[in-house]
Amino acid sequence: MDLSQPRGIRDIEPDEFDLHLKIRRTFEEIARAYNFKLMEPGPLENLSILRAKSGSQVDDQIYSFKDKGDRDIGLRFDLTVGMTRNVSANKALKPPVKLASYGGVWRYDEPQHARYRWFYQWDVEVFGDQSVEADAEVMDLSYNFFKKVGLQNFSLQVGDRRVVEGYIRQAMGVASEETMMEMMRVLDKVQKKTEAELAEEYGPKGVGREALAELLRFGRTKGSPDEVCKRLEELRLASAAGGELVALRDSLKSRGIQNVEYNMSIVRGLDYYTGIVFEVVDRDHPDLGSLCGGGRYDVLPKLFGRPDLPATGAAGGVERIALSMGRAAGGADLEPSVYVAYTEPGLAEKALSTVSSLRGGGIRSELGARGKSLGKQLEDASSRDFAWVVIIGKRELDSGQLVLRNMRSREEEKVPIDGLLARLTKA
Amino acid sequence: MDLSQPRGIRDIEPDEFDLHLKIRRTFEEIARAYNFKLMEPGPLENLSILRAKSGSQVDDQIYSFKDKGDRDIGLRFDLTVGMTRNVSANKALKPPVKLASYGGVWRYDEPQHARYRWFYQWDVEVFGDQSVEADAEVMDLSYNFFKKVGLQNFSLQVGDRRVVEGYIRQAMGVASEETMMEMMRVLDKVQKKTEAELAEEYGPKGVGREALAELLRFGRTKGSPDEVCKRLEELRLASAAGGELVALRDSLKSRGIQNVEYNMSIVRGLDYYTGIVFEVVDRDHPDLGSLCGGGRYDVLPKLFGRPDLPATGAAGGVERIALSMGRAAGGADLEPSVYVAYTEPGLAEKALSTVSSLRGGGIRSELGARGKSLGKQLEDASSRDFAWVVIIGKRELDSGQLVLRNMRSREEEKVPIDGLLARLTKA
Repeated sequence: MDLSQPRGIRDIEPDEFDLHLKIRRTFEEIARAYNFKLMEPGPLENLSILRAKSGSQVDDQIYSFKDKGDRDIGLRFDLTVGMTRNVSANKALKPPVKLASYGGVWRYDEPQHARYRWFYQWDVEVFGDQSVEADAEVMDLSYNFFKKVGLQNFSLQVGDRRVVEGYIRQAMGVASEETMMEMMRVLDKVQKKTEAELAEEYGPKGVGREALAELLRFGRTKGSPDEVCKRLEELRLASAAGGELVALRDSLKSRGIQNVEYNMSIVRGLDYYTGIVFEVVDRDHPDLGSLCGGGRYDVLPKLFGRPDLPATGAAGGVERIALSMGRAAGGADLEPSVYVAYTEPGLAEKALSTVSSLRGGGIRSELGARGKSLGKQLEDASSRDFAWVVIIGKRELDSGQLVLRNMRSREEEKVPIDGLLARLTKA
Repeated sequence: MDLSQPRGIRDIEPDEFDLHLKIRRTFEEIARAYNFKLMEPGPLENLSILRAKSGSQVDDQIYSFKDKGDRDIGLRFDLTVGMTRNVSANKALKPPVKLASYGGVWRYDEPQHARYRWFYQWDVEVFGDQSVEADAEVMDLSYNFFKKVGLQNFSLQVGDRRVVEGYIRQAMGVASEETMMEMMRVLDKVQKKTEAELAEEYGPKGVGREALAELLRFGRTKGSPDEVCKRLEELRLASAAGGELVALRDSLKSRGIQNVEYNMSIVRGLDYYTGIVFEVVDRDHPDLGSLCGGGRYDVLPKLFGRPDLPATGAAGGVERIALSMGRAAGGADLEPSVYVAYTEPGLAEKALSTVSSLRGGGIRSELGARGKSLGKQLEDASSRDFAWVVIIGKRELDSGQLVLRNMRSREEEKVPIDGLLARLTKA
């Protein structure tokens, strides 16, 4: 029988799963510390909801199908849309509403290295808070999440679409909405393409050579928040964002966030965002793309009938973090693990109750292979990487003791039966 | 815009999510203690894999569709099939392989109270261990999982399809395979239907009045493992299962499992199972159905080309446990939660850095509402159920102190700024 899986779908095997588990728990803990409520939107949505943001062009990138009642439904492609639908439908919620979610999402993309058609995302959103403090809160959480997960060398890159738009309109004198949008697209691609490539692609779309050069020069406006705020002041663009970049700088400082860079080429695509946007970049692995992205997207709740719910948030891929973690450190298993061997068949029962009491104490343990000699059991334990072997023998048992063998040092000691759990817990 | 969700699909809202989180973490901990490796099979499978067990009749009960490459795929309806496919495809694994998984599954059933078309299951499986110890291991884990989750009044109900088959063939003299299968179906429905209903339904299928009465009498063979083993001995049926029910009884005893009942009406449906089967029943809420079910199903790995991998396992619904937990106890939030209020706008920065340091210490905390008087902030904290309020005032701050207010007792105390985290951690 053909045991293959659908294209782009794979199992999360135990080693990778352990990394996922660490990431998920860290996320859940930090979301809670920041007073976000954890929830999960349903994985299937009516197609009209999935299309709300970008129209039917989204159909090419998602799994959608007709259910047996001939209704158009699809698998969620992110968590943001479902979270926004949830909050928008609930008129009783008192803003601000802070929600966090962690779950699988599906995209019908061409599979690539470390990019699958089913993968996990984390997501935090603040609804109903117009102030820049909400943006700062989301950046703060994202930043400290990566720190807590153990990543070391990353930076927060902050941009503001209103400032970029202000520059394009005021300084460059672009009046056409369409040309302005094309220029945003240029900035979004500046990391991936050369100036010549951009000229070729966007020349026919109304972005001339000179305008392109000026735009790219402006896109290189980056540096410490102080420097960039000063530069925007000189360009008379500070007011384009209502002074929010200054307030954000101060808030991030109070929150103790370091490694912040303001970067005017960060515009984060086109569909969602309306104001401040940001990315977290892994400096050790810039090839892997950003660790997360986010920003303000007041437009989506408005589409869902809630113009009263401004929204800001962040989301990132879990596989992406696991890759960075995997490269950073081996996943050494430090928790005690115990193999309970026994010297003769008549002691199996005692071995079993010993295993039960260890497990009851939360210690990973396994009963020795049945019908095998002690030597074979020790080999088995060693090949399966157990840190400890408990040996149950007739003679020791008669004096209420067990032998505990440290499989790394190969040292053995005698331990009273009822002292085993305590001995291993402090090991 | 229509914000409805597809029929039978709902969001897991924060209150329910907290129960799910507790259940999931308990499951992950116990699976690890029992030395099962956690993994997750992909949520989409080729339709041929989903059909392996019960043929195309499964199509009516699952979400299946053609992907854009015109391939037949479907959403997993349980975790067992994917886990079995995973292990079957991997010839390098050295048995026994013990896997655990926790994830969402989809069924195209008619939605009912607390039954959705998307819900969570936990699942543990042992592959490549033919011995009854593997069955005992799975029951042991399931039993202690429910105990750890906080359920109190439940029992393990154990049956054996080989014994039932032995009775039907030997004592009742049924030779037809088909009639034998119909009789299994009768036993499977004995909890839900009256004898008259069963007679009407199964009479035409070859189960006459007398045979039905005899079958139901045998199905009432239940009680303590000792009693039932003795009864089967009398009926000369003990050997039908190779004496395994006796070995199982002894193993469960060594493992300290109480509340075990052997019950010959437990046959667990028809598709999977080949030997010992079991259910865990919540005695306080028998109306909710079983908490989990499982048993030996050597047939499925064989279908996947691995006759060398006997298999036994258990799975249960998470919503089902959440219901029992929800009825058992309120979800009182015992972790400290802190609202950081401040008496004047100039102290916002100090309030923010205080919030940051509390969050860094893992304490759920929130900044006081901007631009609100202290009184309004206290009201806000109270309506949002924070256990503590930290009040940052100019005078206390000058002497390096904060005011800490217990929102339940309404007592206030002064705490040195750098002693706040320690004070709350021991609270």
